Amino acid sequence: MRMLINVPDTVVADALRGMAATHPELTVDVEGRVIVRRDAPVAGKVALVSGGGSGHEPLHGGFVGTGMLDAACPGEVFTSPVPDQMVKAAAAVDSGQGVLFVVKNYTGDVLNFDMAMELAEDEGVRVAKVLVDDDVAVTDSTHTAGRRGTGATLFVEKIAGAAAEEGAPLERVEAIARQVNASSRSFGVALSACSTPAKGGPTFALPDGELELGVGIHGEPGRERRPMMTSREIADFSVDAVLEDLRPTNPVLLLVGGAGATPLLELYGFAAEVHRVLAERGVPVLRSLVGNYVTSLDMAGCAVTLCQADEELLRLWDAPVRTPALRWGL
Amino acid sequence: MRMLINVPDTVVADALRGMAATHPELTVDVEGRVIVRRDAPVAGKVALVSGGGSGHEPLHGGFVGTGMLDAACPGEVFTSPVPDQMVKAAAAVDSGQGVLFVVKNYTGDVLNFDMAMELAEDEGVRVAKVLVDDDVAVTDSTHTAGRRGTGATLFVEKIAGAAAEEGAPLERVEAIARQVNASSRSFGVALSACSTPAKGGPTFALPDGELELGVGIHGEPGRERRPMMTSREIADFSVDAVLEDLRPTNPVLLLVGGAGATPLLELYGFAAEVHRVLAERGVPVLRSLVGNYVTSLDMAGCAVTLCQADEELLRLWDAPVRTPALRWGL
Repeated sequence: MRMLINVPDTVVADALRGMAATHPELTVDVEGRVIVRRDAPVAGKVALVSGGGSGHEPLHGGFVGTGMLDAACPGEVFTSPVPDQMVKAAAAVDSGQGVLFVVKNYTGDVLNFDMAMELAEDEGVRVAKVLVDDDVAVTDSTHTAGRRGTGATLFVEKIAGAAAEEGAPLERVEAIARQVNASSRSFGVALSACSTPAKGGPTFALPDGELELGVGIHGEPGRERRPMMTSREIADFSVDAVLEDLRPTNPVLLLVGGAGATPLLELYGFAAEVHRVLAERGVPVLRSLVGNYVTSLDMAGCAVTLCQADEELLRLWDAPVRTPALRWGL
Repeated sequence: MRMLINVPDTVVADALRGMAATHPELTVDVEGRVIVRRDAPVAGKVALVSGGGSGHEPLHGGFVGTGMLDAACPGEVFTSPVPDQMVKAAAAVDSGQGVLFVVKNYTGDVLNFDMAMELAEDEGVRVAKVLVDDDVAVTDSTHTAGRRGTGATLFVEKIAGAAAEEGAPLERVEAIARQVNASSRSFGVALSACSTPAKGGPTFALPDGELELGVGIHGEPGRERRPMMTSREIADFSVDAVLEDLRPTNPVLLLVGGAGATPLLELYGFAAEVHRVLAERGVPVLRSLVGNYVTSLDMAGCAVTLCQADEELLRLWDAPVRTPALRWGL
């Protein structure tokens, strides 16, 4: 076991203490497991709340701040947060303009956010929700009915967050979030399994020299397993998987995401191949982001997420943002 | 081998192609291996040029941009760039106000930057240089006379870069860079070895369940090897190693750096422990940064860098910066 931890039981609480110490612009309730932007509730603004199992950092806590999320609820590693966290988060950030829940499509998350939605509405908070289900690898998966939610979460949170920051009403923020999800697709590849602190070792077996095409962000099985491929081949396979499903008519925003343990040197090399395939397929890239944003602990691997963007989505993507993990213009 | 590459020989060129495609605000000479901010040379501004072996990304290419470096020269993995690259970079960014070379203290880098300094001066470019040697783990090391240069490089490049952006003359930018290096110390710990593409496997043997205290960023031996320690114990050991040498009288800027493969969830937990030790030792923290900034490919591990800062260094740290890896205010 090569983990930088105290004991498995305190991993999430320890990380929250670290977030609190590192980011004075956030309010971190370590006990209650809620991360809130310090100036919340922001008068007149629709609030965005997301959350999910820990282990995908910087998602979601690293996306809390001006122009993105108002609050995030981290669950235990690879485990949904509980409705209490979400209700507490909604109450902390609602300015009276309502709250949008951004929910990745995993059974536990969906159930718990639905329950939290009812509870929050009982307390007088108006709540809408958007389900993120961008992963084209498989329909239905371990703990998922329908597609899994992965990299598009970043696009949904950034773009809908910008709309909320500008003062758009709840219905509009929700509609934009749905448009972003509907315009986005992802495909991920694992070069190694990830290890959870509780298990103390790999969560699935992936022999050295093999890769899992279409892996989920918790190590869920993908489409197929193959002997090691080159960066060029992986880019061809991943981009084509996304394009076959998305069939974009607009240019795209591109996320070349690392799974966690793949060096940035390799990710940039992979990004070059992704740009090459997209150029060959005639898909113009408006903006691209390379790095570890929606991760799977210490998994080695990569993912391609495309979001086709009209002028309005591009404008909202470019709008200022200030969070621990994504920041520009502020 | 779990690498996302084509062939080992093209890893650096592939990554540079990816940088070029991802960051239109940079000019990337893939053949010549130089990354330059697109608006260089900036009239009236002293230019900063750094470089070193690849494998430590985002250092240095990810720090090129407004308020930080004007150019970076990436060598092969863990191998110094050659003088030609540095001379070409200096010529590309010099506005007539001179160039500061930021050099990490490794024998190859020092020799090559010294040679480049002579060559550039022959071509009429005024060049100063600052040596970064912040790693307190050992004096002299593999390929190093004196201390190794590690995390402080980020502080030197950011703070001296801000001074240059404000229009400070070469002598002043050089003096600030020296002050930052003299005010900074680092200590790193490996939980696993790193693998280079050329070798295709680990560069040194670190049995599972052991760690290397004081490891170098190329996997150089540190002070001692011990059985696995907790995050709390590693923080105690690392911070005390830094403080024994630095003995700060001013509050500090803190970098909690990941070696590459350690999940952000674990790094934030480690950051909590680092903040705890610093509080116990009575050292106030002005700013802190947690993440992968000065890495060692796929090494698992962490490092603590402190830079004691007076009001002027803090002001320059807070000044706007816009680079791929560090960005605020722009």
